[in-house]
Amino acid sequence: MINITLPDGSVKAHENGSTPMDVAKDISEGLARNVISAKFNDTIVETSTPLHEDGAITLYTWNSPEGKMAFWHSSAHILAQALEALYPNIKLWVGPAIENGFYYDVDLGDESISDKDFKAIEDKMLEIARGKYDFKMREVSKAEALNYYKGKNEYKVDLIEKLEDGTITFCDHDSFTDLCRGGHIPNTGIVKAFKILSVAGAYYKGDENNKMLTRVYGISFPKQKELTEYLALLEEAKKRDHRKLGRELELFTFSTKVGQGLPLWLPKGAALRERLEQFLKKAQKKAGYEMVMTPHIGQKELYVTSGHYEKYGADSFQPIKTPKEDEEFLLKPMNCPHHCEIYNARPFSYKELPKRYAEFGTVYRYEQSGELHGLTRVRGFTQDDAHIFCTPDQVDQEFKNVIDLSLYVLESLGFDNFTAQVSVRDLDTPEKYIGTVENWEKAENAIINAAKEKGLDYIIESGEAAFYGPKLDFMIKDALGRNWQLGTIQVDYTLPERFDLTYKGSDNELHRPIMIHRAPFGSMERFIALLLEHTGGNFPLWLTPEQAIILSVSEKHEKYAQKVSDYLENNEIRALVDNRNETVGKKIREAEMNKIPFMLIMGENEEANETVSVRKHGGEDLGSISLKEFRDLVNTEINSTLKSF
Amino acid sequence: MINITLPDGSVKAHENGSTPMDVAKDISEGLARNVISAKFNDTIVETSTPLHEDGAITLYTWNSPEGKMAFWHSSAHILAQALEALYPNIKLWVGPAIENGFYYDVDLGDESISDKDFKAIEDKMLEIARGKYDFKMREVSKAEALNYYKGKNEYKVDLIEKLEDGTITFCDHDSFTDLCRGGHIPNTGIVKAFKILSVAGAYYKGDENNKMLTRVYGISFPKQKELTEYLALLEEAKKRDHRKLGRELELFTFSTKVGQGLPLWLPKGAALRERLEQFLKKAQKKAGYEMVMTPHIGQKELYVTSGHYEKYGADSFQPIKTPKEDEEFLLKPMNCPHHCEIYNARPFSYKELPKRYAEFGTVYRYEQSGELHGLTRVRGFTQDDAHIFCTPDQVDQEFKNVIDLSLYVLESLGFDNFTAQVSVRDLDTPEKYIGTVENWEKAENAIINAAKEKGLDYIIESGEAAFYGPKLDFMIKDALGRNWQLGTIQVDYTLPERFDLTYKGSDNELHRPIMIHRAPFGSMERFIALLLEHTGGNFPLWLTPEQAIILSVSEKHEKYAQKVSDYLENNEIRALVDNRNETVGKKIREAEMNKIPFMLIMGENEEANETVSVRKHGGEDLGSISLKEFRDLVNTEINSTLKSF
Repeated sequence: MINITLPDGSVKAHENGSTPMDVAKDISEGLARNVISAKFNDTIVETSTPLHEDGAITLYTWNSPEGKMAFWHSSAHILAQALEALYPNIKLWVGPAIENGFYYDVDLGDESISDKDFKAIEDKMLEIARGKYDFKMREVSKAEALNYYKGKNEYKVDLIEKLEDGTITFCDHDSFTDLCRGGHIPNTGIVKAFKILSVAGAYYKGDENNKMLTRVYGISFPKQKELTEYLALLEEAKKRDHRKLGRELELFTFSTKVGQGLPLWLPKGAALRERLEQFLKKAQKKAGYEMVMTPHIGQKELYVTSGHYEKYGADSFQPIKTPKEDEEFLLKPMNCPHHCEIYNARPFSYKELPKRYAEFGTVYRYEQSGELHGLTRVRGFTQDDAHIFCTPDQVDQEFKNVIDLSLYVLESLGFDNFTAQVSVRDLDTPEKYIGTVENWEKAENAIINAAKEKGLDYIIESGEAAFYGPKLDFMIKDALGRNWQLGTIQVDYTLPERFDLTYKGSDNELHRPIMIHRAPFGSMERFIALLLEHTGGNFPLWLTPEQAIILSVSEKHEKYAQKVSDYLENNEIRALVDNRNETVGKKIREAEMNKIPFMLIMGENEEANETVSVRKHGGEDLGSISLKEFRDLVNTEINSTLKSF
Repeated sequence: MINITLPDGSVKAHENGSTPMDVAKDISEGLARNVISAKFNDTIVETSTPLHEDGAITLYTWNSPEGKMAFWHSSAHILAQALEALYPNIKLWVGPAIENGFYYDVDLGDESISDKDFKAIEDKMLEIARGKYDFKMREVSKAEALNYYKGKNEYKVDLIEKLEDGTITFCDHDSFTDLCRGGHIPNTGIVKAFKILSVAGAYYKGDENNKMLTRVYGISFPKQKELTEYLALLEEAKKRDHRKLGRELELFTFSTKVGQGLPLWLPKGAALRERLEQFLKKAQKKAGYEMVMTPHIGQKELYVTSGHYEKYGADSFQPIKTPKEDEEFLLKPMNCPHHCEIYNARPFSYKELPKRYAEFGTVYRYEQSGELHGLTRVRGFTQDDAHIFCTPDQVDQEFKNVIDLSLYVLESLGFDNFTAQVSVRDLDTPEKYIGTVENWEKAENAIINAAKEKGLDYIIESGEAAFYGPKLDFMIKDALGRNWQLGTIQVDYTLPERFDLTYKGSDNELHRPIMIHRAPFGSMERFIALLLEHTGGNFPLWLTPEQAIILSVSEKHEKYAQKVSDYLENNEIRALVDNRNETVGKKIREAEMNKIPFMLIMGENEEANETVSVRKHGGEDLGSISLKEFRDLVNTEINSTLKSF
């Protein structure tokens, strides 16, 4: 008999050789029906793997990330079998599960696959699934493994040759065999719905000097309904893609001449950013922050001092040399070293702390061109950065104040679905972090206490801390249920050491201040991308490019249109006038496309009564109201989201 | 007889061999008394040089730049003689006139000169001056010249050896002789006052591998009174030095770690910059500008396209390489290429022009460390940049609109003493400019017409145009009478060609827009330096860091002080509170040092009557007034300088 410990801590004796599926059945038939993968003593195993020692077990269903991984990994096997059946001469390389689905890289030889072939592949996969073939792992010797592929598939041969001479495993199902480490669902029948999503080129081993293979992306689900929902979500996400909306709403653009990953903000986008910045500046002023401004470069030595050179140096933009002197500069990858030098510009007494220096600081970090993506992965971005220099006594309160400010920002922008992630050290890899254990413990405790006290819904992630200190990140769930990592708060005991920052304490001695890094938006670029995708371009009223558009029924109302426009301008409502000689229907359609919240339609009656007919974006008709009523309507809606800090 | 043409165009016959002094005497005895230098047919001559051909003459007095040059050049001879008299073993190198005075570089051998020696040198110079010795030029052969210095002065020998074998001239006065090209005042007696200003090290020939010589700086005047005034001005300029005031008022700082020439803006300075920027943004919005934002780097190819790489490439910050790809980036030396790419992001119709894109764009240009100076010569600075893209028909009006905006900026900041410089091509060196002659003519005429129509006091400078187009610069005379080049407006027919910018005309064909570059402040850094030196740190009330400080007579008025502070904050008046347990006298002295415009003093009476006793910076007592009266006083003063655009 062996003793199996369940996640709730209970231990039960099972016969030696029992499988995870046996354990599941012992718990309940319902669980046994749903369990698709398992972990035994920190190793992912098959549900059919015989267990021969005492240990802890976790059983996974589709609803866990691990369950999905096994599900999609197994689906990749099915894809490979289907591809071999349809294209007998192709050669398989590897096929992992990914965040959403799976792919398989194949050398198609003379064949090619296009979207009109997807249906046939999906049908073949479904046919294999319906066969309910068990996934069965078996050990093979290296020689056997090589023998299986030799002369047929040089990619697998190369892969096997590079493996250590240990246990090599194959996985069989139906007539198909693949080299595989394991981690499958019980049988193919559990997969009920497949979708081939796309094909793309992928260099063998990711090296552009190698042959280009074909990567076939797919996704699969245990129910057809889930696939349908997923595809609808994909469709909606495509509509909300911030790159598409950014172009349509004329917010930003990219230029191949300026360079990839370097956004150019068009007038409407720049004005929107300015409103976001002014909004935060106002709140920050109330919270006792002071704005500073620092250059976008610094001497290489500055970043050697700060440790950023060690972290970013080799992989980022290379040093900038000068024609005459032996100086080397770097594009700043972070603002913190500059703010440390501002703090260092004069001595401080404890009575003057905390000092809170804020800057919308644009930083530059090199990313490979293949990794760039719209505004979410760029080579230059602006942090709504601030650094708080305070005494040890002040850390807790300052951290809480920053949480308050961050919550204010999220609320003002209509986000109510978020969690916090507290990132702490991985205690097993102390070499990854700079600074003393004592300081790390103090900082981690300060963060966890603040998160608790502020009632945040938080999780603690080991090993996710920055190299210089622990942090709290806000994770926002957008309208499509996707998670975005945004604002961050980080405690730092290290930079004050490296920059020899001091203040004079009440004891007249010099002490080391503690530094808190924080950025409620995180990056302006990334935040605006999230806002675009979350709102589908329908920004909060206070922020949106135009709040209203004045649509005159005919050109003879031009004068009244101007009067309305002047009234709105005097009342600080941003409005456009559309006096073109076009039908109201066309004007409304265009205003809808431009996502303008209010359309003020005016004809004979409105001009006579000094009113406007108000249509909301989306179609709701608010009827004819006076200008003052419209102004109040706008202000009420704004005040419902945008409160003062 | 020879015919001499005077600057007014009149021609008079003089005897062959007449001197400029003879011509002066012929005009008037008064002129003869004052003339100290002359130009004959574009060559500077002595007033004693015999003229032997027809030609045009200009006679210079002390009041012209050329007269001052001759005066100070001659004074350098007197300095050299005095130094030789006092330190017989020294060796002279060269001694030119400079913008304010003159210097002489000497090898002092074992001697040294410090400021306690200055008086003796000045006395010796005065003694030589009183001798009224004539400056007399004479031609010598190269052999004679070498013979004179050989074995005594290797610097002069080296200098003479490198001279072409043509006319070599010596200048004698009293017992002193110097190698010299000429351009002196008639005699030493014209100089009535000397001041040795400083000594500094200077490498022989400016090469740091050579020996370090001693550079003795001096200045001289035709009247003692003028020296006295000049020294007072120097003293005042020292007090107003923006580097000193910037430090004292905590506006900005520099860090050797971040790098020389890269200012860090401290909270008060950053807030002042923000006010300046918001002020201009507001006016620009009314003037139809749209803000954009662009990155601080661009691909090298972008600047090759624009021509900036050719202009700045070799001498500026070198290209930034990336770790993985063959891309090279440059720190942007100008914003224009980025704005061209913004224009290029979509097609335009003539109906949509002009487009006016504005950005507070920070640019980086390398300067040698020896040339850096506070905020006026930096390696990174922010231009209040904008680029107007318009049709040919719109250039004149747009140029005039920009002049209006520039004048508004100057007026709002209290500058009324300025001129404009229109910089056009040097017609003799067409190779220095890019673009067609026709376009240059059109642009130059547009600028001159606009300057005329707007009633500017302008001068035209040949050869001062940018390589890509003519321009108009505003030259501001500060409170000390010094000239600063600031805001600029430039017409550019070239970049639209290079970036292939187009718009669709009313004829449905594509046309090339014309570009106007403009920056009313020029550089934010330089402008703030000027403001500091012009105002001595007493900024216009709307701009100054703190507009008022509340000084309580004792701690028991703390509550009332807070009430006053709240009132001011609600009325958008920036005020500090000084509740320290210090005497009012000390508090006033510190407020004076911090140049705070209004001190609101409060004690028993003020609290009882809800008033404040107002003392202006500088000492004027405005008596006890109500809070509302104080608010109105502030607003009235602000509105007198800061009108809306």
